[in-house]
Amino acid sequence: MSGADNQALIARLAAIVGGSYVLTSDNDCAPHVQDWRGRYHGKAACVVRPGNTDEVSAVVRACYAAGVAMVPQGGNTGLVGGGVPGQGGQEVVVSLSRLNRIRSIDAHNNTLIAEAGCTLVAVQAAAAESQRLFPLSLASEGSCQIGGNLATNAGGVHVLRYGNMRELTLGLEVVLPDGQVWDGLRGLRKDNTGYDLKQLFIGAEGTLGIITAAVLKLFPQPLSRTVAWLSIPGPATAIELLAHLRNACGERLSAFELIAGSALELVLRHIPGARSPLTRCGDWALLVELSDSASNADLAGLLGSALASELEAGRVLDAVVSSSEAQVRELWALRENISEAQKREGISIKHDVSVPVGAVPAFIEQADMALRKFFPGLRIVCFGHAGDGNLHYNLSQPDAADNPAFIAQTREVNRIVYDIVMSLGGSISAEHGIGILKREELKHYKSFVEIELMQQIKRAMDPENLMNPGKLL
Amino acid sequence: MSGADNQALIARLAAIVGGSYVLTSDNDCAPHVQDWRGRYHGKAACVVRPGNTDEVSAVVRACYAAGVAMVPQGGNTGLVGGGVPGQGGQEVVVSLSRLNRIRSIDAHNNTLIAEAGCTLVAVQAAAAESQRLFPLSLASEGSCQIGGNLATNAGGVHVLRYGNMRELTLGLEVVLPDGQVWDGLRGLRKDNTGYDLKQLFIGAEGTLGIITAAVLKLFPQPLSRTVAWLSIPGPATAIELLAHLRNACGERLSAFELIAGSALELVLRHIPGARSPLTRCGDWALLVELSDSASNADLAGLLGSALASELEAGRVLDAVVSSSEAQVRELWALRENISEAQKREGISIKHDVSVPVGAVPAFIEQADMALRKFFPGLRIVCFGHAGDGNLHYNLSQPDAADNPAFIAQTREVNRIVYDIVMSLGGSISAEHGIGILKREELKHYKSFVEIELMQQIKRAMDPENLMNPGKLL
Repeated sequence: MSGADNQALIARLAAIVGGSYVLTSDNDCAPHVQDWRGRYHGKAACVVRPGNTDEVSAVVRACYAAGVAMVPQGGNTGLVGGGVPGQGGQEVVVSLSRLNRIRSIDAHNNTLIAEAGCTLVAVQAAAAESQRLFPLSLASEGSCQIGGNLATNAGGVHVLRYGNMRELTLGLEVVLPDGQVWDGLRGLRKDNTGYDLKQLFIGAEGTLGIITAAVLKLFPQPLSRTVAWLSIPGPATAIELLAHLRNACGERLSAFELIAGSALELVLRHIPGARSPLTRCGDWALLVELSDSASNADLAGLLGSALASELEAGRVLDAVVSSSEAQVRELWALRENISEAQKREGISIKHDVSVPVGAVPAFIEQADMALRKFFPGLRIVCFGHAGDGNLHYNLSQPDAADNPAFIAQTREVNRIVYDIVMSLGGSISAEHGIGILKREELKHYKSFVEIELMQQIKRAMDPENLMNPGKLL
Repeated sequence: MSGADNQALIARLAAIVGGSYVLTSDNDCAPHVQDWRGRYHGKAACVVRPGNTDEVSAVVRACYAAGVAMVPQGGNTGLVGGGVPGQGGQEVVVSLSRLNRIRSIDAHNNTLIAEAGCTLVAVQAAAAESQRLFPLSLASEGSCQIGGNLATNAGGVHVLRYGNMRELTLGLEVVLPDGQVWDGLRGLRKDNTGYDLKQLFIGAEGTLGIITAAVLKLFPQPLSRTVAWLSIPGPATAIELLAHLRNACGERLSAFELIAGSALELVLRHIPGARSPLTRCGDWALLVELSDSASNADLAGLLGSALASELEAGRVLDAVVSSSEAQVRELWALRENISEAQKREGISIKHDVSVPVGAVPAFIEQADMALRKFFPGLRIVCFGHAGDGNLHYNLSQPDAADNPAFIAQTREVNRIVYDIVMSLGGSISAEHGIGILKREELKHYKSFVEIELMQQIKRAMDPENLMNPGKLL
């Protein structure tokens, strides 16, 4: 596109949204053309900030008419570069942050309608005001936006009980690549009237259209909560304990997080005020949470009696069960600060993988063995949502000075890790998506049939390839 | 297709599956070319019964090469004619009933892999053998098959707690319209690697491919169960009670069924041994079930105390809480026999609709009023999964002799009912699907944008329109 065409499009967009909502200077665009980790740096023709669905539709129509590609963007907290424009400087970043209204709450239906630009924390707060729970919970919840949560099918710590973003969504409103609006904002628990179109847009990373609003599921608020920190012999025991606690506690089991001793160690070293929950921490720990909508549920009693047999049998080496909400928060902080502590320690090669839950121990054993063979002395920081079979598996050299040489071997490291994941029937991206980061890996690991099916859908729905090109596929 | 081409295809199919598994005589084909309610009668070139996925793939390749359309068929228990061939006599019915193995169970992962031809009851039994629950539960569970449950996204009485078939599925194996096999049999709780293709095939009624196997979710077995029958003033109270019981009992609430007095009356009249659960039954009742994975949960106590305030406030007029598993079954039988009792009473115009849960009372009030204006004295039998906003809303004349004239007005009746459903943001097919029965209604009620999106997907994935043509779209 020529500079004149470019200026004409920017003028059209300004006429739609108002001049102050079209950003063109390098300074104004800067936060929108790179990811927050600073790994991806793109260029954009402009950043446009429509204020409602009609404006999004008009913006998309204008870009479509001009043949200009669009990059939908939410809170820009993604980890795979999915919301960052390419290098060409021709793409228009469509920021959804001004679509930030909670349109309605239906307490009887246990649903709310949120616009794409609502932060996750704003949705949680709106639910809480109606004595309901919106259960999605992520480290970035203060700044990530619902549209991005939908586009990446976000996960987090409570998937075990409540499901991913996909399972939390009943309906969508989407602006299609040609600017038409699909109104699929139905708040129905049962609707069998044809293809479930919303499923295509959830997890599509903005490559099929721009989500502008969603009907989200709400749940009863948990009024009782108990957390335990368990020292365990190893990952195999974790999986046995998961089955045991599921049977003993049913749906009350709302988090089941595995934490390697190496991860806890980093938190204790780098996070002020963090203290070890047990006198002897050992190589592996679990953080287990029970919650109940009854305010007087004796969860500590239930958990205590479920753990008694396990302590006796040696499947649990030591345990602390929270006795106050303050202690609940303190134990959770140990888990939540792992990423921050790792960051302070230096760079690492990160993986976000999943396997069938029963294969978690095999993955850890096989990956550790294969990696230590090629990289003796490697520091492996492994933690995550073991109850979902989802691990964050991060690798670095113990001496930060050795890290650049190690990072240079990312390709080889990934091949080792992902080959093992795939041999166990797993996924190379459990909850972060593909974006730019894993696009080549996706082609490597998906079957031809599956890639071709995805391409068929992409071509059918976005024949001009204007929606977030260069991402995912 | 000429008779000779036809014979050539039949010979090719026989070479693939064996001659005894290609049915061609009218007698052999009869059970496969009409639906069990006897509403739809089609004709088929033949019925082919492949024995495994490779044979399904070869059968589809042969049909694809010959340009012959296919009708995938499971237990043929559908209610909308989705599994019945058209009138032309050219289509091949592909019966999946020989693909009836449970391929594997993974108790740690809480999953099993079932082939499409497994009956629902066989899947339930396999789960129970591993001390797990597969929660889908339907009237036809003894004969319906998993492939059909998937193709129609089946619902039933426990959707409130466990979700529809869609939510119970982690992975699929599908034979595509050209015979290629897509292996999406992943048993992962988290997998964000591109478009979630399985979602397209679930609920597509066989129009995009033939599902041959699925990875299904299992749950802890409920070891405690309590059921209550409540007499209530009306539907509005039901919705208030739903919110109250959700807060008081959380996920233990596993069924919430609304039953009009007219429905109970039919059961008491036609079903031998059925007896009224309460001395004074009134116009409306609820059947409420609580279940818990703990064997010693005091559910009767929990439910009793949750109901005390409601009895006092007059939101519950009378109540019986089960005191034994025999009584649980007896109360459930009253609900489950409504369809059978209705059948004995004579034909009726049936609807399977849903609205947002809070709109259930408005739907019942508005539909009753509108219908009684045009059809004075009409018998309205309304019951269903009120906890999901899903009602079965069936209409007949009190004197069976008047029914034929009434049935002749089905179009007008449907218009009244569906217009109200749509005005409340509801669905004209909550759990039965579209098939042949509601194909024209779908075009009437879906937006142009939505129909066009569905057509785009259909054209992209089945460009020759060989998969169950004439159904759904």
